[in-house]
Amino acid sequence: MRARHKPWAEDYLIENKEIVEITATDQKGKWNSLFPEEQPLHLEIGTGKGQFIAGMAKQFPDTNFIGMELVKSIIVSAVDKVKEAECKNVRLVNENAENLLDIFSQGEVDTIYLNFSDPWPKNRHEKRRLTYKSFLEKYRTILKENGQLVLKTDNQGLFEYSLVSFSQFGCKLEEVTLDLHATEDPKNVMTEYEEKFSAKGQPIYRCVVSFS
Amino acid sequence: MRARHKPWAEDYLIENKEIVEITATDQKGKWNSLFPEEQPLHLEIGTGKGQFIAGMAKQFPDTNFIGMELVKSIIVSAVDKVKEAECKNVRLVNENAENLLDIFSQGEVDTIYLNFSDPWPKNRHEKRRLTYKSFLEKYRTILKENGQLVLKTDNQGLFEYSLVSFSQFGCKLEEVTLDLHATEDPKNVMTEYEEKFSAKGQPIYRCVVSFS
Ligand SMILES: C[S@@+](CC[C@H](N)C(=O)[O-])C[C@H]1O[C@@H](n2cnc3c(N)ncnc32)[C@H](O)[C@@H]1O
Ligand SMILES: C[S@@+](CC[C@H](N)C(=O)[O-])C[C@H]1O[C@@H](n2cnc3c(N)ncnc32)[C@H](O)[C@@H]1O
Repeated sequence: MRARHKPWAEDYLIENKEIVEITATDQKGKWNSLFPEEQPLHLEIGTGKGQFIAGMAKQFPDTNFIGMELVKSIIVSAVDKVKEAECKNVRLVNENAENLLDIFSQGEVDTIYLNFSDPWPKNRHEKRRLTYKSFLEKYRTILKENGQLVLKTDNQGLFEYSLVSFSQFGCKLEEVTLDLHATEDPKNVMTEYEEKFSAKGQPIYRCVVSFS
Repeated sequence: MRARHKPWAEDYLIENKEIVEITATDQKGKWNSLFPEEQPLHLEIGTGKGQFIAGMAKQFPDTNFIGMELVKSIIVSAVDKVKEAECKNVRLVNENAENLLDIFSQGEVDTIYLNFSDPWPKNRHEKRRLTYKSFLEKYRTILKENGQLVLKTDNQGLFEYSLVSFSQFGCKLEEVTLDLHATEDPKNVMTEYEEKFSAKGQPIYRCVVSFS
């Protein structure tokens, strides 16, 4: 996902502290206290422009959502999406998934979403893929026992890689679909990339795995 | 796979005893002694008309192959394919995979192939799918430690089901491809169904799992 550099992005995030958690590490272990209700905590990594996390927050008021996005010029769009949604059960953090263990305590998260993560197709970039084992190790730590990860992508190579990586790591595959849009699913909230690629007729892959 | 009823099929199998093992249960634990060489034993379940097993035998002389097929009117075509191939490292059995434990002893088989198995799409027929857990249980028994199963299919539903079934059973996914024919693989031996479906442009799915 590309975005023009926005020099005002940093200030914009600070102005929107009711939506963006600026010092995310301070919230480690107490994320749920930021929300009106104590309820399951779902985390999206690589939130992009925020259509998914805002849509999920609206559709599932009984869940608290956190959208994590690395790039300031991108997350500002997510801020706007969340504002429009007018939901109290969603917050954003401008952080790198590398630092998950500084941001969440053990077992604090119920579900993780990876949507259309950068595929890093070259072998020598394997470690950057968000389903590389060093990331899975972090996910296992912050997820509660039997917590789940839900992955959606249009990228065949990343999907194939991820299925093998999950299995080798000891995750259990709970669900898999090789053409998500072949059947209507009213519960499916589309991301920006998902809209783009499914409009082109590309199959969208999805899987759910559990960690133990 | 359909075939006209062939009343002569039973006699034809008996006439071809050097290719077809008539009393398969008698060979339990000593399959390798039927072949000129003691070498790894690979089993295909649902061999159909035999193009795969004959082609594999030709391409991999350092492996012994057994093709198992339930239907007499179909296996007769496999007999002809094996004759044409003129290989000593392949035999056929007219048996039902239900009876695997009567035919092979524990750890006797190195690799199992399932090619374009009947999908049995209805939920109430789940138990008939060759990747249902009761079959996986049998495969685990007859496979040697860390033995592998290789599955190819064009059927999306069967492939999705199988990936989940393997994982829930505790198999490890070693390889997966969601479009086998997108890249040239000179080692890939095509089955009859594979030729038919890939010619239509349908993606062919393949995975390799290991049992422990
Ligand atoms: C290809 S985009 C997909 C965006 C959105 N999920 C969608 O489906 O439309 C991937 C996003 O992940 C973000 N990202 C990549 N690596 C990340 C990391 N380590 N931590 C947080 N975000 C990351 C990128 O900045 C980018 O916005
Ligand atoms: C759809 S056909 C595929 C044939 C071939 N493998 C191919 O790819 O062209 C499936 C075959 O599996 C056989 N089969 C189904 N269930 C079986 C079982 N339980 N034991 C042995 N063979 C079986 C069927 O008779 C049929 O010939």
